[in-house]
Amino acid sequence: MDGQRGELIIGGFALEELAGKATFEETVFLLWYGKTPNAGELADFRARLAAHRALPSATLGLLQAAAPHQAEPMDVLRMAAGTLSLETPPDPDEQALALLARLPAAVAAYWRLCQGQDPLASRADLGHAANYLYLLTGEIPSPARVRGLETYLNTVVDHGLNASTFTARVIISTGSDLVSAITGAIGALKGPLHGGAPGPALDMVFEIGTPDRAEAILREKITRGERLMGFGHRVYKVYDPRAAVLSLAAREMYEADGDMALYELARFVEKTALRVLEELKPGRNLQTNVEFYTALLLHGLDFPVGLFTPTFAVSRAAGWIAHCFEQRAAGRIIRPQSEYVGEKGKMWA
Amino acid sequence: MDGQRGELIIGGFALEELAGKATFEETVFLLWYGKTPNAGELADFRARLAAHRALPSATLGLLQAAAPHQAEPMDVLRMAAGTLSLETPPDPDEQALALLARLPAAVAAYWRLCQGQDPLASRADLGHAANYLYLLTGEIPSPARVRGLETYLNTVVDHGLNASTFTARVIISTGSDLVSAITGAIGALKGPLHGGAPGPALDMVFEIGTPDRAEAILREKITRGERLMGFGHRVYKVYDPRAAVLSLAAREMYEADGDMALYELARFVEKTALRVLEELKPGRNLQTNVEFYTALLLHGLDFPVGLFTPTFAVSRAAGWIAHCFEQRAAGRIIRPQSEYVGEKGKMWA
Repeated sequence: MDGQRGELIIGGFALEELAGKATFEETVFLLWYGKTPNAGELADFRARLAAHRALPSATLGLLQAAAPHQAEPMDVLRMAAGTLSLETPPDPDEQALALLARLPAAVAAYWRLCQGQDPLASRADLGHAANYLYLLTGEIPSPARVRGLETYLNTVVDHGLNASTFTARVIISTGSDLVSAITGAIGALKGPLHGGAPGPALDMVFEIGTPDRAEAILREKITRGERLMGFGHRVYKVYDPRAAVLSLAAREMYEADGDMALYELARFVEKTALRVLEELKPGRNLQTNVEFYTALLLHGLDFPVGLFTPTFAVSRAAGWIAHCFEQRAAGRIIRPQSEYVGEKGKMWA
Repeated sequence: MDGQRGELIIGGFALEELAGKATFEETVFLLWYGKTPNAGELADFRARLAAHRALPSATLGLLQAAAPHQAEPMDVLRMAAGTLSLETPPDPDEQALALLARLPAAVAAYWRLCQGQDPLASRADLGHAANYLYLLTGEIPSPARVRGLETYLNTVVDHGLNASTFTARVIISTGSDLVSAITGAIGALKGPLHGGAPGPALDMVFEIGTPDRAEAILREKITRGERLMGFGHRVYKVYDPRAAVLSLAAREMYEADGDMALYELARFVEKTALRVLEELKPGRNLQTNVEFYTALLLHGLDFPVGLFTPTFAVSRAAGWIAHCFEQRAAGRIIRPQSEYVGEKGKMWA
C-alpha cells in the first residue's frame, strides 16, 4: 500500500486489476500461496473451503446464548472465533480453511438468531460469497449481488500492517495458533479507530434524502465543524484506490439488481460534498474514502449496518491468515523494547 | 525491567521489596492507580473485586461444552475471557475488576469440570489468591499457601512490553474494549515462545529422582546438547530477580506446608546444574530462570502442570489491564509502517 501514490497491491496485482475479476476464493489462494490457482487447484480449494462451513455445536450454543443479550455482532464474532479451536482440524492448512469458512457462518447464524430465525445450513454448491448471502437471507443471490460482494471482499482483504493484522502477527509470533491470532485480530478490528463505522457515511445520505437538500445540509455540517463521514483518509492523501473500485462495483450492482435512485442520490451527495469541501477547506484534498462506498454497496446487498464491520472481518480474516503464514515462517517473536520512566526504590511500609 | 542489571521494578518497588509482602490486591491497586492503597481503599477494592467473581451463565455453559473435548486450558481460558462481554459492567473500572475476578473462576471451574467435579461458588470472605485455591480444591488454604501464591502472582504480574502485553496495547489502541484486549493477550501468552512451558523444568527434577543421580544425568543431557529447562533467559543475562524471589517463596511455603524432600532435591539439582553448566559451557553465565521455581512453587501448591500457564495469565491479566489504561490515555493507534517487497503489475488472465 502506497498512500502517496494511491496504490494498493494484492499479491502482485493492482487492486483495480484484481478486485472486480477474481472470485474471493481466487484472491485467498493468491494471498496464501503466492500464485493464482489453475482450474484444478481452484476447484479443490473451493471444495475444501466449503467442506468446513458447519459450526461446532459449542459455537452454535454460544451464539444462542448471546442472542438474548443482543450483544454487538463484532463481540459475538470474536467469541465465536475463539471457540473454533474446539473442533479444529489438526493440519494447519485445513485449520486456516476451517477458520475462514466458519466466520461468515457464525455472523449469519447470529444475525438470524437475533431476528428470532433459525440458522440455515450452508450450501456446498455455492461459493464463499454466495453462501454467505444465502445464510443471511435463505435466498440464492443473483450473480450481480455475488459479484458485488466478491469485489468488496477482495477490496478489503489486506491493507499493509494495519492494527488488526499486526495483532495477528504478534500473537502468532509467540508460537501460538491461528484461532488465537484471528480472535485477537477481530478484537482489534472492532475498535472505532480501525474497523471504524461505515454506517454513518450512508446515514448522511439518508438524512439528506433528496438531491436539492444536499448542498445546504453539507455546507451547514462543514461550517459547524462537523467531520463528514466518508471523506478523507489518514494514509491515502491523493486518492483511495479502494473507493474507486467500490464505486464501480456499487454502480454495477445497483444497475443490475438494486435501487438506482439511492445510488444516484449517493453519487450526487458525494460530488456535492467534494465540491463544497474544496471550497470551504481548500488545499485539504479530502477525497471520498472506502467507508462511503462500502456503506453504499453493503446496504445495496441488504446487509444491516450492524453487519458491516463483521463482513469486513469475514474478508480481512483471509489477509490475517496470510500474514500469519508469513510470520510463522519468520519464526521470531515480536517483542518491542520499552523504557521504564517511573519512580524506583520505593520501600513497602 | 533491566536485563543487564537484573532489575525488575513494579510500580516503583524493586520486585524483591514488594513480592513477598504485598497481597495481590495491593499489587493490582498499585499498578492500576499508581499508588499503594490505604486501609479503606484496600477494603473497598477487595470487596468490589470479590463481588464480580460469579461467571456469566454463557461462560459456564461454554466451559461445560469444552470439557468433553479435553481442550487445552489456555484455549479454554481465551474462550471464556472472550465471552465475558456478555455480562460486563458498563463502568470501565468495574469492567476491569470483573475481568480480573472472573479469570481464576473460569480456570478453576474448567479444571473441576475436566475432573468430573462441579464448579464451586466463590467465597467472599477470601482474598483473590485464597479464593482461587479454594475454587480448585474446595478447601480453605493455609496462610503459607496463600502467601506462596500471592508472591507468585506478584512476581509475574508485569514484565515490560512482552508479546502478550504488547498485543493488549495494540488491540486497545484501536479504541476496542478490555475484553478484546485481554482475550487477545491470552492468545499470545499461550505461545510456547512466550508463556512457555514451566512444566519441563520440574520434569527433570522428577526424572533425576534422588540427589545421587543428579550429576550423571545432567552431564549426559548437556553433553548430548539438550537444553536444560529452567536455566538461561533471553533478557536477564546476569541474574533473574524473579527466580530469587520465587526461590525464597518456595522455601518458605514448603517449610510451612509442603514436601521438604522435593524442595531439597530441586535445590540440589539446581546447584549441580549450575556447577556442571559452568564447567561444560564456561562463560555462558546460564542462571536459574523463573520457570524452574515457578514449577516448584506451583507444584507445591498442588497446581497440575496444565494450570501453570493459565495461572500465569490470572496474574498477568492485572498487568495487561494496567497497560491498557495507560494506552487508552495515550489515545493513539499502534500501526507500524511496512514496506511491500513483492511483485507488482501482474495482469489478471
